[in-house]
Amino acid sequence: MKAIIKQTPAPGGLVLTEVEVPTLGGTHVLVKIKKTAICGTDIHIYNWDAWAQKTIKTPQIIGHEFVGEVVEVGKYVTNVKVGQLVSGEGHIVCQKCRHCITGHPHLCRQTVGIGVNMDGVFSEYIAFPAENIWICDNNISHDVLSVLDPLGNATHTALSFNVLGEDVLITGAGPIGLMSIPIIKRAGARHIVVTDINPVRLEMARNLGATEVVDVRTEKLTDVVKSIKGMTEGFDVGLEMSGSAAAFNDMLNTMANGGKMAILGILPEETLPDWNKIIFNSLTLKGIYGRQMYDTWYRMSALLHSGLDTEIEKIVTHRYHYQDFAEAFEVMRRGECGKVVLDW
Amino acid sequence: MKAIIKQTPAPGGLVLTEVEVPTLGGTHVLVKIKKTAICGTDIHIYNWDAWAQKTIKTPQIIGHEFVGEVVEVGKYVTNVKVGQLVSGEGHIVCQKCRHCITGHPHLCRQTVGIGVNMDGVFSEYIAFPAENIWICDNNISHDVLSVLDPLGNATHTALSFNVLGEDVLITGAGPIGLMSIPIIKRAGARHIVVTDINPVRLEMARNLGATEVVDVRTEKLTDVVKSIKGMTEGFDVGLEMSGSAAAFNDMLNTMANGGKMAILGILPEETLPDWNKIIFNSLTLKGIYGRQMYDTWYRMSALLHSGLDTEIEKIVTHRYHYQDFAEAFEVMRRGECGKVVLDW
Amino acid sequence: MKAIIKQTPAPGGLVLTEVEVPTLGGTHVLVKIKKTAICGTDIHIYNWDAWAQKTIKTPQIIGHEFVGEVVEVGKYVTNVKVGQLVSGEGHIVCQKCRHCITGHPHLCRQTVGIGVNMDGVFSEYIAFPAENIWICDNNISHDVLSVLDPLGNATHTALSFNVLGEDVLITGAGPIGLMSIPIIKRAGARHIVVTDINPVRLEMARNLGATEVVDVRTEKLTDVVKSIKGMTEGFDVGLEMSGSAAAFNDMLNTMANGGKMAILGILPEETLPDWNKIIFNSLTLKGIYGRQMYDTWYRMSALLHSGLDTEIEKIVTHRYHYQDFAEAFEVMRRGECGKVVLDW
Amino acid sequence: MKAIIKQTPAPGGLVLTEVEVPTLGGTHVLVKIKKTAICGTDIHIYNWDAWAQKTIKTPQIIGHEFVGEVVEVGKYVTNVKVGQLVSGEGHIVCQKCRHCITGHPHLCRQTVGIGVNMDGVFSEYIAFPAENIWICDNNISHDVLSVLDPLGNATHTALSFNVLGEDVLITGAGPIGLMSIPIIKRAGARHIVVTDINPVRLEMARNLGATEVVDVRTEKLTDVVKSIKGMTEGFDVGLEMSGSAAAFNDMLNTMANGGKMAILGILPEETLPDWNKIIFNSLTLKGIYGRQMYDTWYRMSALLHSGLDTEIEKIVTHRYHYQDFAEAFEVMRRGECGKVVLDW
Repeated sequence: MKAIIKQTPAPGGLVLTEVEVPTLGGTHVLVKIKKTAICGTDIHIYNWDAWAQKTIKTPQIIGHEFVGEVVEVGKYVTNVKVGQLVSGEGHIVCQKCRHCITGHPHLCRQTVGIGVNMDGVFSEYIAFPAENIWICDNNISHDVLSVLDPLGNATHTALSFNVLGEDVLITGAGPIGLMSIPIIKRAGARHIVVTDINPVRLEMARNLGATEVVDVRTEKLTDVVKSIKGMTEGFDVGLEMSGSAAAFNDMLNTMANGGKMAILGILPEETLPDWNKIIFNSLTLKGIYGRQMYDTWYRMSALLHSGLDTEIEKIVTHRYHYQDFAEAFEVMRRGECGKVVLDW
Repeated sequence: MKAIIKQTPAPGGLVLTEVEVPTLGGTHVLVKIKKTAICGTDIHIYNWDAWAQKTIKTPQIIGHEFVGEVVEVGKYVTNVKVGQLVSGEGHIVCQKCRHCITGHPHLCRQTVGIGVNMDGVFSEYIAFPAENIWICDNNISHDVLSVLDPLGNATHTALSFNVLGEDVLITGAGPIGLMSIPIIKRAGARHIVVTDINPVRLEMARNLGATEVVDVRTEKLTDVVKSIKGMTEGFDVGLEMSGSAAAFNDMLNTMANGGKMAILGILPEETLPDWNKIIFNSLTLKGIYGRQMYDTWYRMSALLHSGLDTEIEKIVTHRYHYQDFAEAFEVMRRGECGKVVLDW
Repeated sequence: MKAIIKQTPAPGGLVLTEVEVPTLGGTHVLVKIKKTAICGTDIHIYNWDAWAQKTIKTPQIIGHEFVGEVVEVGKYVTNVKVGQLVSGEGHIVCQKCRHCITGHPHLCRQTVGIGVNMDGVFSEYIAFPAENIWICDNNISHDVLSVLDPLGNATHTALSFNVLGEDVLITGAGPIGLMSIPIIKRAGARHIVVTDINPVRLEMARNLGATEVVDVRTEKLTDVVKSIKGMTEGFDVGLEMSGSAAAFNDMLNTMANGGKMAILGILPEETLPDWNKIIFNSLTLKGIYGRQMYDTWYRMSALLHSGLDTEIEKIVTHRYHYQDFAEAFEVMRRGECGKVVLDW
Repeated sequence: MKAIIKQTPAPGGLVLTEVEVPTLGGTHVLVKIKKTAICGTDIHIYNWDAWAQKTIKTPQIIGHEFVGEVVEVGKYVTNVKVGQLVSGEGHIVCQKCRHCITGHPHLCRQTVGIGVNMDGVFSEYIAFPAENIWICDNNISHDVLSVLDPLGNATHTALSFNVLGEDVLITGAGPIGLMSIPIIKRAGARHIVVTDINPVRLEMARNLGATEVVDVRTEKLTDVVKSIKGMTEGFDVGLEMSGSAAAFNDMLNTMANGGKMAILGILPEETLPDWNKIIFNSLTLKGIYGRQMYDTWYRMSALLHSGLDTEIEKIVTHRYHYQDFAEAFEVMRRGECGKVVLDW
């Protein structure tokens, strides 16, 4: 079968090559891939940055965002059937630690990441652990189903705190920031303010339901906040999705006392917070990683059936055949896009 | 000034009469009433049922749902100004008990009810405690502002449990049941099923966003539940707003294990629950009274500004001049209506 | 091997007999039983009441409370080793439904009960699903380890609501009610009042840390409540563990507004609650079944290591060799005991 | 009357002087001070550091920790009586903002601090707002009642997260860190590890119930953690009470995934957190300020009645007559003490 492989421990070095179809263990299912999407993680691997150098063992099939069809199931599998349309959770957990056995496996320390610590999904077939499979509804667009992984990040972050009737700041209008907007809106937020430095993305943010968008290169967030009617205390909830120290401090400066911040963006190590703001204003900061297994998947799916799917579809801006993966990666690297999907 | 008074301790006995404009205490504000709405409580007083007989001391001005304009403020009042459009919370609390001083005054045992334990708002002017005043936005319809009290009951009940992505059953499509529908929808519910025995109200329920309505005279709720796609466990959340034992048991029978039920409807004393359902299915029942002071008011107002106001306006079906109060009460007693509003 | 079997579908009918040692599946472990404890459920089966008649298929090995040593593990088992001291959760769940995959398997509708729907643990060996095994600490008394199942019920119930600084009513001083007392105390409760009609059990309750015990045959709970210093609002939290309608209504009558009640006792079907108390006093009732898998097990074990073990040991009042099971069942049926343990 | 005044805008400059007894407003009570305690804030004022220079307007009576007796009440006061023993909350709030009217006045942005923004309690009498009064029980030691303010900080911090059965790290064994130990213990924590660099304070920590104390000058916290039986994941809850960047990072390094940290210590502005720890390990950080009004006061009082009072009494290590205040301040500045109390 065909697969996209990180061949060499150096920048670039992705090749499309022929590999064996994986053999199927008793608790796995074999999935014929239909669509995959490119994650920021895949770009880190492509760029071969510090994180990639210490994490990835070449050669390895990359990728972890996918939708496909089950073509074979292992002999102990009872929860999935041949013919089902599926996606899956890319974190394989230990099933033994306190977190795993008390319903919080997303906190497991022994997590193994598909497409990171082992071969991924950018290939025609993948043998996937049956317990990590999420069965999909064929009525939802396959483009949308190929991005359930990042949509799960967005859902996990957006639902970290109650937003009904609240004023919410989202810093960063990348794909996950954009996905958060309609989720937050469906959860009943009042004002949704989105900041970024990319006018195209801010325009997408507005179309997805942001009540205000702020280009922080030309406007000050504090000025915009003052102009919003009925918002006297600052933001009740903040979702940090930019990975920018400046954006993070903008958020700290505009939160209401007692406000809650969910941090998904990976902040630069030199990011210095204003501790007086955190402590004297009684702020809560919550680091977010992955998705709740599988509460996030359940709620995300329920939202998709309530109409979220058409909003997420707008965020998929580019589609390529997998043979054109090089072009797809280039678009991603230039950042002139929402989500980029590969057809298999 | 003119006022509607329960004159005699007997059924009926409401009269429009002339009384003194109330004198203003230092911590009160004088409100010129613009609109009032008729509550089920007012009908109990009119009918002079067992509850009314033991509760109401005649003669008394009745009514507690209102919107009006402040025309004078007491000398110690700092939170309200002359000219502001206002409504208010009808429960005056002790301010000394544990509940009052820890932020839960709606649980105060020493509550005094305006229009119940003391003179009410069905009059041209009322002297209202300043701390119970809720300042309103003139951009919201005055009809809607006159029903903030029952809208608060609906909001308090509807927000008792997280409904995002959940399947919700509302038993009873009276005014408060109807108000709950758009609130639940704005909080992100997936399926919203409403039961009643009144086709007109069920039709209103559908127009307000119910995904299924069930006339339990002709359909079995359990049959409808089976037909709903993707709902395999039963209802995650139930809002009991009918005060009907049959409806309550329909709810018990269709809840998912671990489901949460908020009970606002006043159940008949002979209502026998199926304890095995409650205990073995790990259900939670939460009795609801009044509104959270003033969290419910805040969130309700935020929702109104996000568009809930146009939905609530549909629930106000009848408007009368206060001199025609007798006709208004007749409409309410026949139940052929949503909310009935009196203009002053 | 020897096993205690419900032989015939009639009252009594327990026999000690010889059966085959169970064969071991790939995901099971073989446990050599050391101690078992008799549950109220086992008495229902003995008495062959209505519940038992519709639930139990004779002949069947009964029992589900145990501690033992692992003597063999199935070939796919990775979480348990030969030689470990273990107990286990008696509910086998489907692992597919929403509750199972979102961390709430105790709410699974497809639960199969060991010793109820299939052969139990009153035997020399049992083949137990590895994922239901709880590994025990040999430093804890084996008597205590043989009652982790009901201790889990007590823990699950007692930890349902925050009790730190709160006043707690426990109705029913049977074994699980008694176990709840030191748990509630360790969770920081202020006053712990226990009611029953059995003076011996009330004395045990006092020794375990109850601040007041009430024999409701001779004292009125409402009188006792009035005498307790600093308790002005009623009980903040109630744990119903008697299965008595009178006790339940005593609780309803003495709860603070906004109080929370956890209901573990199986109330008679004719138990009529005072709905006005539930609704107007904003009470919460939560039905409790089983234990949270495996959060309850984790917290219970942590408490045992903090000294709870010596308190629970006091509740084990009788020990018999398994051959004397008939006498053990008689003691249980007469109710003159705490927990009754069988040695194997 | 006599009062201790910050006379001049410079280091030192505290003088005992004669001032007028304050006049009593209608909503105030006049309290004859019995005991006051010295807070770290008072030392900042004494030292005239950057914070004090921008905050304090000299001359001003300082101090905010006290217990006294009510000798007169304003004419509108209904919640307090002459002769009652009282302490009080030192934050005067606006009563109008969202936080104030929804039960979270500790989050009010318009807070005015007694002894900081206005005259304080280090004087023979103080006119105190009646609504800020907390009525005390004469059965509790007056030394303990004079430190309810910092005990409230400790309680607020310690109860921020559920600790039942959990492993807790407290960094900093100053007075508030020490107070937290018995609170955390009474809330059911399993292991309580305390770090500091002062052997005397660590010894006090051990006597108050810490299961391990760590002098980080000579031991590595990570080594101690490894040696603790049954603690495999790290700390579930952390209470930062040192204001030390090193201690904070020690905490970050030893938290379990998903752990919760309450931050009361005022961290130096250059404190750089390890963001990867916060984000990838899904940590929660909650800034703590003041006390919840008045839930913290209620629970703290309930705990004192359950025996916490004798533990807190051990933390009051020095007592002086108010005329010897200079010596008291010297002891505090040298840090060779728990709490230091002045008798009036």
